[in-house]
Amino acid sequence: MSRPRVEVCFTPNLYPLHIEDEYEIVVAIDVLRATSAICAAFEHGVSKIIPVSTLDEAIEYRDNGYIVAAERKGQIVSGFDLGNSPYSYMDPKYKGKTIVLTTTNGTRAINTAKHVNDLIIGSLVNLDAVCKYLSDLNKSVLLLGSGWKNKFCLEDTICAGAIAENLLKTGNFHSENDSSIAAKYLYLSASENYFGFLKASSHRRRLRDLNLNEDIKYCLTPNQTNVVPIREKNYLIKA
Amino acid sequence: MSRPRVEVCFTPNLYPLHIEDEYEIVVAIDVLRATSAICAAFEHGVSKIIPVSTLDEAIEYRDNGYIVAAERKGQIVSGFDLGNSPYSYMDPKYKGKTIVLTTTNGTRAINTAKHVNDLIIGSLVNLDAVCKYLSDLNKSVLLLGSGWKNKFCLEDTICAGAIAENLLKTGNFHSENDSSIAAKYLYLSASENYFGFLKASSHRRRLRDLNLNEDIKYCLTPNQTNVVPIREKNYLIKA
Repeated sequence: MSRPRVEVCFTPNLYPLHIEDEYEIVVAIDVLRATSAICAAFEHGVSKIIPVSTLDEAIEYRDNGYIVAAERKGQIVSGFDLGNSPYSYMDPKYKGKTIVLTTTNGTRAINTAKHVNDLIIGSLVNLDAVCKYLSDLNKSVLLLGSGWKNKFCLEDTICAGAIAENLLKTGNFHSENDSSIAAKYLYLSASENYFGFLKASSHRRRLRDLNLNEDIKYCLTPNQTNVVPIREKNYLIKA
Repeated sequence: MSRPRVEVCFTPNLYPLHIEDEYEIVVAIDVLRATSAICAAFEHGVSKIIPVSTLDEAIEYRDNGYIVAAERKGQIVSGFDLGNSPYSYMDPKYKGKTIVLTTTNGTRAINTAKHVNDLIIGSLVNLDAVCKYLSDLNKSVLLLGSGWKNKFCLEDTICAGAIAENLLKTGNFHSENDSSIAAKYLYLSASENYFGFLKASSHRRRLRDLNLNEDIKYCLTPNQTNVVPIREKNYLIKA
């Protein structure tokens, strides 16, 4: 039996180039900050997250009484309860609740991979848990970065490279694409010191300028939770 | 006065995401093998190369008596004089001649950057000459990889990273995009040993399977020529 593939797709706009290879599971990655915030939410007891791509959808949910988080350009959209900061999801008042979420890049990545059966949420904060989940599953996997408005971003690629490298070194997976090789090398260069390596990353600069240093620190610290959020129908729950 | 930018665009399909930044010059890169073959051609006396994107255009030129090179999937298209092998362009019979060229990826990259005024051809074989040319010019530059059917490829990215790193370390350029940081890191990881680093690259495997090891060796050996091919109207000449 041939070993399943693990490959990296840098950004949602490149997803159509990859789907012909028919992956069984997609991991949506938006390290700064959507998928880190989603992990934080489930770790702190949120029961369900509904990811939506547009503000129109978000507004409709809000008008129907939902708790709605909306982030654009790094900031909470005016008129919404929450943005994209992981810390905001740790509030006990959200325990057991359903939250609707739309972000600049992350929810777009999640909803891009609509026609694949299985989708999970990956980030550095749940890195080892995701690797164990995928390794146990032993299915072909596409690691899908969110990027910044479809431009390549370093932190998602490094997270994807970390997952790829972990699966490859079990000997039970293989990869063929140059994007996967590059992600793996970037991860190996970065793994000693994420903060130092990502100092120059454009999105980190963007968030730092918005005084989001605490968020950055949380998002770039691996393995703070064992939750693996998975998609069921149109929402996310804890696996 | 602000320093000009140097950035990396991995593949032609991503070019629209970059053009809003209004670069003054584009470097088209297809290490394996189109831009390496173009450099070899000018180094050996070819006087003009007309890059065309489609086989239809190539056939029309052929019917009008031109020497036409056409490559698809790594091989010469049946019925054409030449393919994409740098060695084939070294034949003295092409001295002083005009050659029309269409390739799977390289000529597409060249023609993607249609509306920028200045375009030059870069590869590892003319690396230092390209760096010197760009450094003297001191204009904002986009390094455009060809990829493989719009998928990211390692060798073009490493070549772009080498050019970026050379310009950045003069202190006269700056870069902002994560793609440029990644290319630079990949170059720094690879620069000790291109052959070893690229052993696993998908396109190298593809060419090796076609028995093109000599071509690979030529294309991955830096600085074999000082020519810098530049675009004038719809053709390329030696600068």
